[in-house]
Amino acid sequence: MKASYLRIRIESSSPGHAIKAADIVASIQKEILKNPSAQGCRLPPIRILAHQLGMSKNTIQIAYEELVSRDLVTSKQRQGYFVRTLPSYKKSSRQIEAGKATFRQLFRPLKYFETGDMIHLGIAFVDPHLLPTQKLTECCHSVLNQPGLLSAYDTQGYPPLREKIAQRLNQRGMPAHADHIVLTSGSPQGIGIVCLALQNRHIAFENPTTPTRKRFFELNSYALTGLPVDPFYGIGLDQWETIIAEERPNLLYLVGSYHQTTGYSHTTQELEGILKLSREYRFGILEDDWGSDMLSFSDYRSPLRTLGGGNIIYMNSFTKKLLPSFRIGYLLGNEENIDALIAAKHALTLGNSPLIEAILFEFLDRGYYDSHLKHLHSKLDKRYRNCLKQLRKRMPEKVKWTTPGGGTALWIEVPKAIHLPQLEASLLKRKVKIPNLTEAFLGPPTLHGFLIGYAYLPEDKLNHAVTILGEEMDKLLN
Amino acid sequence: MKASYLRIRIESSSPGHAIKAADIVASIQKEILKNPSAQGCRLPPIRILAHQLGMSKNTIQIAYEELVSRDLVTSKQRQGYFVRTLPSYKKSSRQIEAGKATFRQLFRPLKYFETGDMIHLGIAFVDPHLLPTQKLTECCHSVLNQPGLLSAYDTQGYPPLREKIAQRLNQRGMPAHADHIVLTSGSPQGIGIVCLALQNRHIAFENPTTPTRKRFFELNSYALTGLPVDPFYGIGLDQWETIIAEERPNLLYLVGSYHQTTGYSHTTQELEGILKLSREYRFGILEDDWGSDMLSFSDYRSPLRTLGGGNIIYMNSFTKKLLPSFRIGYLLGNEENIDALIAAKHALTLGNSPLIEAILFEFLDRGYYDSHLKHLHSKLDKRYRNCLKQLRKRMPEKVKWTTPGGGTALWIEVPKAIHLPQLEASLLKRKVKIPNLTEAFLGPPTLHGFLIGYAYLPEDKLNHAVTILGEEMDKLLN
Repeated sequence: MKASYLRIRIESSSPGHAIKAADIVASIQKEILKNPSAQGCRLPPIRILAHQLGMSKNTIQIAYEELVSRDLVTSKQRQGYFVRTLPSYKKSSRQIEAGKATFRQLFRPLKYFETGDMIHLGIAFVDPHLLPTQKLTECCHSVLNQPGLLSAYDTQGYPPLREKIAQRLNQRGMPAHADHIVLTSGSPQGIGIVCLALQNRHIAFENPTTPTRKRFFELNSYALTGLPVDPFYGIGLDQWETIIAEERPNLLYLVGSYHQTTGYSHTTQELEGILKLSREYRFGILEDDWGSDMLSFSDYRSPLRTLGGGNIIYMNSFTKKLLPSFRIGYLLGNEENIDALIAAKHALTLGNSPLIEAILFEFLDRGYYDSHLKHLHSKLDKRYRNCLKQLRKRMPEKVKWTTPGGGTALWIEVPKAIHLPQLEASLLKRKVKIPNLTEAFLGPPTLHGFLIGYAYLPEDKLNHAVTILGEEMDKLLN
Repeated sequence: MKASYLRIRIESSSPGHAIKAADIVASIQKEILKNPSAQGCRLPPIRILAHQLGMSKNTIQIAYEELVSRDLVTSKQRQGYFVRTLPSYKKSSRQIEAGKATFRQLFRPLKYFETGDMIHLGIAFVDPHLLPTQKLTECCHSVLNQPGLLSAYDTQGYPPLREKIAQRLNQRGMPAHADHIVLTSGSPQGIGIVCLALQNRHIAFENPTTPTRKRFFELNSYALTGLPVDPFYGIGLDQWETIIAEERPNLLYLVGSYHQTTGYSHTTQELEGILKLSREYRFGILEDDWGSDMLSFSDYRSPLRTLGGGNIIYMNSFTKKLLPSFRIGYLLGNEENIDALIAAKHALTLGNSPLIEAILFEFLDRGYYDSHLKHLHSKLDKRYRNCLKQLRKRMPEKVKWTTPGGGTALWIEVPKAIHLPQLEASLLKRKVKIPNLTEAFLGPPTLHGFLIGYAYLPEDKLNHAVTILGEEMDKLLN
């Protein structure tokens, strides 16, 4: 077994300036005598130590030879210098097993995208076949020719992309300045940045939220407040007020349109009520507007920030609409909070990859994104319409579902007479998977159903799965 | 001013299945009557609502016309349908300013890479001109031709890269399995993942640490324990034990070699002592081995994991050695903790960019990384030797410095007679910048100096800056 190298520290009376051979002898001798398990270890090769200390190899050799003469070290031809092993020394395994940190019991998440021949009804992403990989690849090739791009990163994010995003937001009627934008690696990082910058980490959110968001908040041990939303009847502002008055959160994480789990979009009245509550009870709002570009007619669901002003932190991403693998989004803050947001991002990650950011800039700049969205919308609209048609055809009477008109998913509410785990199991036997969304709820679930991600599946697969779903539900109801 | 769209919710007795024109009339009427500020708002265009609800445009039109006949809505030729404005209604600005979240007072970090004509002595990165942008660009072009790469992400990280890293670790004498590796977007994310997965977030670290690490821990409100390290005299294991016995951290974040602030590398005896403490006081170790590839002769500083076994979480990154803009690294866990690590990464980010991961795989697979490292080492060794030479030539007698022999920086300790802020100011006038590292210390600084990042500056710039440094120090000492 090859001998370990001995890691040593050379002490001297004027460190750096002048390290004498005598310093080396003294330091190594001390190390050897203090440390029985040094026996048999190899000393650093002469040229290494010489390089490290900035001394000549000669001087190191003199020091090593002195250690040999003191019977502390032996020299093996062409192998180097070794700490002498005393006869009584037992050559035991030198490994001392380290202690363990206590980790939480966490289960790894399911591999989302690999479903094999199973039809997964609950994936709220866009079908990758509808995504513009070809044009993105083009942009990537082009971007790589830019000098200097790869050498550094800007904590706040690639400036031309921030400018471009600000421009587009302004065009949509949201005043925005590039200086107030922070690029992210997607919404999870965006939420992480905002939360890290908060003084008081008490977060409120619509309940249900998404399992990932809830897990993030819980793992970070934030104080949490769930505000109930029924996608069929909306929210009770009085109920929200009672909860908020009691719990006094610092920030509300709100998905204004096309909630990722329920598909719900707040009414104008609800948004106005929420804004009033935020003023009265002094909490901020982080608006997750991920879905707004998922509507052909995005003017019709104005972001909350255009209604409630610059105190609202506006968040969006390109993940779902462009490429899940791209991991890029942004936050829009304001003059007051932008420093805190940038500082938090810096602490979290120093900076994200400018390569990705530059590719996206190119893609936007060439107009590819807008033509992509147009194309995407028409495909998704078709899938949505087909989904509604299939549901009407196949779902038992007592089943109901939301009609978001945008986003990537809708919610199916199932009568309590149908035991969801049983439904899940019988569907699995027929190679159809529905998601279990109990983890999306803070506290006991207030809804009894699951989401259908119509944007992910080609129509024939969706039709097949919905037919089977209807059949299995019928069985359980009769 | 263009009218806002009214966001509405249509309720029906069998949501999804059958939404009748009467449902639409009732829902919109309720919205209008309940909500005075709905006046003057535009209703969703007929085709939008038809699409959303999956109904015919005819039916929507019938509903809208009914609302007109009830005097709730007016129709404007070619503009659409609007909620009727009562004569008494004041057309006020509809904006209700949202409340504010309380943010911490955080200052944005300095723009690190832009120094203009200032010579920044304290940048601990590698000179970007020494980095292989050309070959990385080649790999990127090649990777883009792979089908399916951009469509999804693997939470744990691009499998071929994990395999490759495991292979390389095995070759270095560290048993490693691809299944136990989690790819990261750099060490900040790596630390974030480990901390998020911890049961009890009490972190110990060498003091000084780095300003960014400290800020990250503080912003997350973890309990913190600083363990003093003097780069000239090492650590006092007894002192560490006393502190640990009292404070009982759950995890020790340890930079075994080439500490980013001081350049310090622990001796074998110190590492063995630390391992014993970790067993006795039951804490885990997160080893940051970023610098090991920064030594020409990396065998000579074995990672702690090869000594202390698989309980040690091993972390490394490609950032400093390859490209700061690449943001990629990894964690090596074990069978016990890997699920928690993957789950924590998923909560933090879902997944990182497989494009970047695939480019790095290509770069490793072609052997470019190893030849790059060889080339880099010889350049950095030269800069290191030159730096030592300059310091010996220019530094006043009482100044001392460390001799790490690897990494990217060394620590200069300055006599207390020199007032550091004054030195900083006088250097700035001569266009030389030294870093203020008080923020690297938990508690009052135990060292009085700063780091010199010799790897970042070309030799002529370093020589110039060190000459000026020597002159200004002389002035302050006399």
